[in-house]
Amino acid sequence: MALIVHKYGGTSMGSTERIRNVAKRVAKWARAGHQMVVVPSAMSGETNRLLGLAKELSPAATTPELQRELDMIASTGEQVSVGLLAIALQAEGMPAVSYTGWQVPIETDSAFTKARIQRIDDQRVRADLAAGRVVIITGFQGVDAGSNITTLGRGGSDTSAVAVAAALKADECLIYTDVDGVYTTDPRIVEQARRLHTISFEEMLEMASLGSKVLQIRSVEFAGKYRVPLRVLSSFTPWDIPIDEEASSGTLITFEEDVKMEQAVVSGIAFNRDEAKISLLGVPDRPGIAFSILGPVAEANIDVDVIIQNVSHDGKTDFSFTVHRNDYARTMDLLKSVVVPKTGAAEVTGDTRICKVSIVGIGMRSHVGVASRMFQALSNEGINIQMITTSEIKTSVVIDEKYMELAVRALHKAFDLDQPAAA
Amino acid sequence: MALIVHKYGGTSMGSTERIRNVAKRVAKWARAGHQMVVVPSAMSGETNRLLGLAKELSPAATTPELQRELDMIASTGEQVSVGLLAIALQAEGMPAVSYTGWQVPIETDSAFTKARIQRIDDQRVRADLAAGRVVIITGFQGVDAGSNITTLGRGGSDTSAVAVAAALKADECLIYTDVDGVYTTDPRIVEQARRLHTISFEEMLEMASLGSKVLQIRSVEFAGKYRVPLRVLSSFTPWDIPIDEEASSGTLITFEEDVKMEQAVVSGIAFNRDEAKISLLGVPDRPGIAFSILGPVAEANIDVDVIIQNVSHDGKTDFSFTVHRNDYARTMDLLKSVVVPKTGAAEVTGDTRICKVSIVGIGMRSHVGVASRMFQALSNEGINIQMITTSEIKTSVVIDEKYMELAVRALHKAFDLDQPAAA
Repeated sequence: MALIVHKYGGTSMGSTERIRNVAKRVAKWARAGHQMVVVPSAMSGETNRLLGLAKELSPAATTPELQRELDMIASTGEQVSVGLLAIALQAEGMPAVSYTGWQVPIETDSAFTKARIQRIDDQRVRADLAAGRVVIITGFQGVDAGSNITTLGRGGSDTSAVAVAAALKADECLIYTDVDGVYTTDPRIVEQARRLHTISFEEMLEMASLGSKVLQIRSVEFAGKYRVPLRVLSSFTPWDIPIDEEASSGTLITFEEDVKMEQAVVSGIAFNRDEAKISLLGVPDRPGIAFSILGPVAEANIDVDVIIQNVSHDGKTDFSFTVHRNDYARTMDLLKSVVVPKTGAAEVTGDTRICKVSIVGIGMRSHVGVASRMFQALSNEGINIQMITTSEIKTSVVIDEKYMELAVRALHKAFDLDQPAAA
Repeated sequence: MALIVHKYGGTSMGSTERIRNVAKRVAKWARAGHQMVVVPSAMSGETNRLLGLAKELSPAATTPELQRELDMIASTGEQVSVGLLAIALQAEGMPAVSYTGWQVPIETDSAFTKARIQRIDDQRVRADLAAGRVVIITGFQGVDAGSNITTLGRGGSDTSAVAVAAALKADECLIYTDVDGVYTTDPRIVEQARRLHTISFEEMLEMASLGSKVLQIRSVEFAGKYRVPLRVLSSFTPWDIPIDEEASSGTLITFEEDVKMEQAVVSGIAFNRDEAKISLLGVPDRPGIAFSILGPVAEANIDVDVIIQNVSHDGKTDFSFTVHRNDYARTMDLLKSVVVPKTGAAEVTGDTRICKVSIVGIGMRSHVGVASRMFQALSNEGINIQMITTSEIKTSVVIDEKYMELAVRALHKAFDLDQPAAA
């Protein structure tokens, strides 16, 4: 007997018919002898509907007071879901009880609309599990020290599920999604993309942050921190497939590096075309220069991704970084009006027509020549590399966006990702 | 400066445009210097939509476990309303904060779907009022000792508003509704029906329970118990009418009997055609007979309204009562199969084509001949009286339903309710 956490997305909860299917699937697991905790999202479209009503009354939630009310409103979507799922399970003859974030309680800070979980009290849930009940907990939300309802931000139900699994020391947390696992790259771009049976936690982090949007990144961080075995699998399989088959489907996110050593050097190719690059040329190379450039950017709440500064010549250096394309114009204005006068930079240049392509693999740590193989593959296709950054398990290049698909396909092939992995 | 509670129904909260109007009206009161607490219902149709979803999964909520989940689901309607109204007020530049039942907290028993309020903690609300904030509290719901969400049953928002007003010792509780006050009788039946400027608490109780469905009966009981001055007024007046005019509109439910002594003997005519009458004839007249008849009926959860037992002849008596028409067939079956064999009654008869018409007036206490004037008026119209019951401030007759409108009109005229009251 294991303690299992299931997480179902909004699509799986999209109608009473689908909720009934979720109930049947959960009941199957419970009848197999497992203690079951379920974290469902709001019915698809519901959170948008609720926030849309709020927006009609106040276009922007610019104050903590307004954000508190948004959380009050948005959190009801999940509350309806848990109640409906509990009813569906009871209708299946399976004892079940639902809890909101404040009832568990799931304690968070007071950062309304983007709160962080601080502590989960598992006492009430454990008592129900011991009594043979399926426990259903609202995703996406918690309660702060002042008894205010908070939400974790969009996609926060993944994080809730992993946090609950961590608090309960669950044997596995299964995330049921629209996709059937994590792929070597996006199958819409590379037809030969394969589903990975396992992926390491660190690789998953890099894949998630680079745009393979299977899981919310914070949920992966949480899983890593608390070593929660996490499985991404399809919610579209029939509810009554054999439980053994279901339990080994999808992609398992693991913490055992030894397993990976025997496998491919590179696990996947990630990419992102939401960014724009900006360079300050001829910046005087003195201590504190990076801060005097990025300080004002951070203050303006603009997120920076890649940052590159190369060695200097004649006391001058070039400083480059990427921001989201939506922030490009604002960042350029800021640099020209504030940063250039302050730093004495010679010039500001930028380009929105770029993309970032990355190879990700825990095997890169112990294999030399991985990056050069990447550069060779791109060179063979005549693709010019504009920027390069590397980390222990990832190498990223910034290239002209028109080459993105070509680069992803070339790299997928160069690292033998088209071939089925050894079993 | 007064402490005022406003209650708005689902129609008033039916769209963001209407919510904006409610916010403007409340802001007007707050800017006039009043401390404001607002109790809104769910947006019209929302509670039915939510319970409809639950019903698709489980047609009947027959267990406390299922009823708990219904409350979990249904309570979200009001939670959305309070959040939206708080946002609308903030958008008007008026500080406002919303609370659910459990946040106040409004403590109830654990009778899910029909809980009763036990205690309201006013500390948090008072702090907000002192800080100049409008406080918005969910109607219809509370929290039990086990931190489960409970609801008060349909229409419970009236009760919430009055209970909150009682806990805060509010100066007045204003119930904004689809009608502009309490009338001498239903204007759809008697064209000359007039709005009452004031009505006593006891009269209001009788009027409410007899079908003048302006206020939920429990809210009137609450108002009486805690002496909360209650005003029923229209939510359809423009939000910007002068506050003095608004504050004296509608019908005020008072506790000062002296005021009433100078006014009409009868305040209104109530009626009800939802009932059916049932008689057991030739019942042996012995101690315990009423219980042996009504005990099984109560056990079957059938509500009984009028009960009549007249003097006996030859050791036999006739026992009559009324039930809701929906319960008529079930009650007849129960009497024939269980009660008749047990009591030795000679016969069971019943009739669904009846109605109940009542005159209500606190003045009846001190005026003789009120009932006989009623019987005379009915006699003049050739209406036969089937049953009669009386209380201190009410006299009811059961008659053939086809005479209902005629009887109401005749009584309305006989007691001079067509004439404007003295100012």
